[in-house]
Amino acid sequence: MPLSTTIRLQPSGAEMPQVGFGTWKHNGQKASDAVYTGLKHGYRLLDCATDYGNEKECGIGLRRAIDEGVVRREDVWVVSKLWNTFHRREHVKLAIRKSLADWGVDYFDIYYMHFPISLAFVPIETRYPPGWYFDGKSEVRHDPVPLQETWRALEELVDEGLVRHLGVSNMNSGLLTDLLSYARIKPSVIQIEIHPYNAQVRAAEFARSQGLAVTAYSSFGPQGFRELNTPKSLRTPPLFTHPTITAIAAAHRCTPAQVILRWATQRGLAIIPKSDTVAQMEENMRSLEIVLTAEEMEAISGLDQGLRFNDPADDFEGCHIFT
Amino acid sequence: MPLSTTIRLQPSGAEMPQVGFGTWKHNGQKASDAVYTGLKHGYRLLDCATDYGNEKECGIGLRRAIDEGVVRREDVWVVSKLWNTFHRREHVKLAIRKSLADWGVDYFDIYYMHFPISLAFVPIETRYPPGWYFDGKSEVRHDPVPLQETWRALEELVDEGLVRHLGVSNMNSGLLTDLLSYARIKPSVIQIEIHPYNAQVRAAEFARSQGLAVTAYSSFGPQGFRELNTPKSLRTPPLFTHPTITAIAAAHRCTPAQVILRWATQRGLAIIPKSDTVAQMEENMRSLEIVLTAEEMEAISGLDQGLRFNDPADDFEGCHIFT
Repeated sequence: MPLSTTIRLQPSGAEMPQVGFGTWKHNGQKASDAVYTGLKHGYRLLDCATDYGNEKECGIGLRRAIDEGVVRREDVWVVSKLWNTFHRREHVKLAIRKSLADWGVDYFDIYYMHFPISLAFVPIETRYPPGWYFDGKSEVRHDPVPLQETWRALEELVDEGLVRHLGVSNMNSGLLTDLLSYARIKPSVIQIEIHPYNAQVRAAEFARSQGLAVTAYSSFGPQGFRELNTPKSLRTPPLFTHPTITAIAAAHRCTPAQVILRWATQRGLAIIPKSDTVAQMEENMRSLEIVLTAEEMEAISGLDQGLRFNDPADDFEGCHIFT
Repeated sequence: MPLSTTIRLQPSGAEMPQVGFGTWKHNGQKASDAVYTGLKHGYRLLDCATDYGNEKECGIGLRRAIDEGVVRREDVWVVSKLWNTFHRREHVKLAIRKSLADWGVDYFDIYYMHFPISLAFVPIETRYPPGWYFDGKSEVRHDPVPLQETWRALEELVDEGLVRHLGVSNMNSGLLTDLLSYARIKPSVIQIEIHPYNAQVRAAEFARSQGLAVTAYSSFGPQGFRELNTPKSLRTPPLFTHPTITAIAAAHRCTPAQVILRWATQRGLAIIPKSDTVAQMEENMRSLEIVLTAEEMEAISGLDQGLRFNDPADDFEGCHIFT
């Protein structure tokens, strides 16, 4: 088993794996197999979400690993995220019950508010996961629910033992400041888009100064979005072939992916890269063994352009967070 | 009297002057004279704030103009802003009473929340205006107050007739979305930093889609901050000598300042430039007479770099909004 490091969460003191297993875009049988294989190869945090539409499949992979004695439930961090259409108090309960049932677990280790955006409720029987569009096609229907109402409902999930740690995702520091002013149970983690093109030094430092651990998603920048053919990702040079990255990779005799991941973890961030093969699973985990110099870290941070590939305002009417 | 245009506010239907009179950095006798002279030369909106430390002096200028029959109180929009140290409900009342007394008026036409940042209360007797530092020197002391609590207190000011319209300032769209979800009385105006280096197209469009008028402050970009010697403003090329701006000014036989202001008002934004002389007061007001072509508007918008000169996170610990 390769090197494994953890980040201590507040207030529980629990040790969250620094390198988790990303499940976004793992679908069907492949999702079950990937989760099972990831657990077999040492991953102990499964980062998922209602919106990924694969919680049942991921749950099957987890169940198989437990049944075969690879892990016990309590060894694994099972992570999900509340979708935007479930922000009303009564819908928060509904949403987590569905996610827990799909996973076949009775609690989540982390449950995130996926976005600080509240959309009109779509019944589970109508469409699940509901996605961004009320009609499943083109209409973004907003439903103004204060974040405080949603947070109160999330806090109750902790009270009831359904969630060990709360998290927020896709928030800026202004929204986080306000949330911290009224949170009875503070978020333990914030998960935001961080990669060399969007280094987010200030946001990460601020969140940590407030006691939150920071998980970077989309560590490879445009890579994950190229699979979806988003215009912004297609016109941005890939990081894997960026000369700054490839030069550092050559110096360390490692892969560009490892350099990019190590830049994040050496900053103290948690990461949740997606791996399609056992080779990638090991490559990503072993990135922890590299030690980048201060100059290399700075050179990578120098690629920052404040470039977000996941800004809902690009695609969905009225869904503004950062602008 | 030169051309004058207005922007209709919701929900009152009142017509706010599109070109107001900025009072930031007008101090002492000069502030009184500037306000009086501004009113004499057709300005009908006085944009001020607790933090500017000149409300008494501005009030003297207004009083003189009223006493001499230049204007009646009801002809003028008197605008103030709640400072960060007065965010608790009981302090909101205290703050507005002090500002109204200093101005010598019994209501404000617009009262803004100056920043979505809550700092520890400093009694008026201790220091006024209190500024960013709790000790007046170096300590930024936070006091977590939910924006919702502050907004409830501001709504009560409207109920009591002390304020005609509420506004928010220095907010991003995520914070505005949340505020709109719980506001009983919605903000009528948002005042944000907008100039060619920080065009804020999305933020302005989003606010307008939600029924808010948008007032641009620091229309001249680095100019107002150069007077304060802020490093960011000193290393940024001035807009007044920028070739894109000077070429358009030459084409219209007007000044660069007029081009910059017209770019804002032609976008439907209100502006509140500072004028030190009668010549500047007239120059700024007469910018409304220019008509920029679509190509010229685009060329100016093309200078956008998302560059903020007024980001409290640059200077004050833990004061994050946009990051």
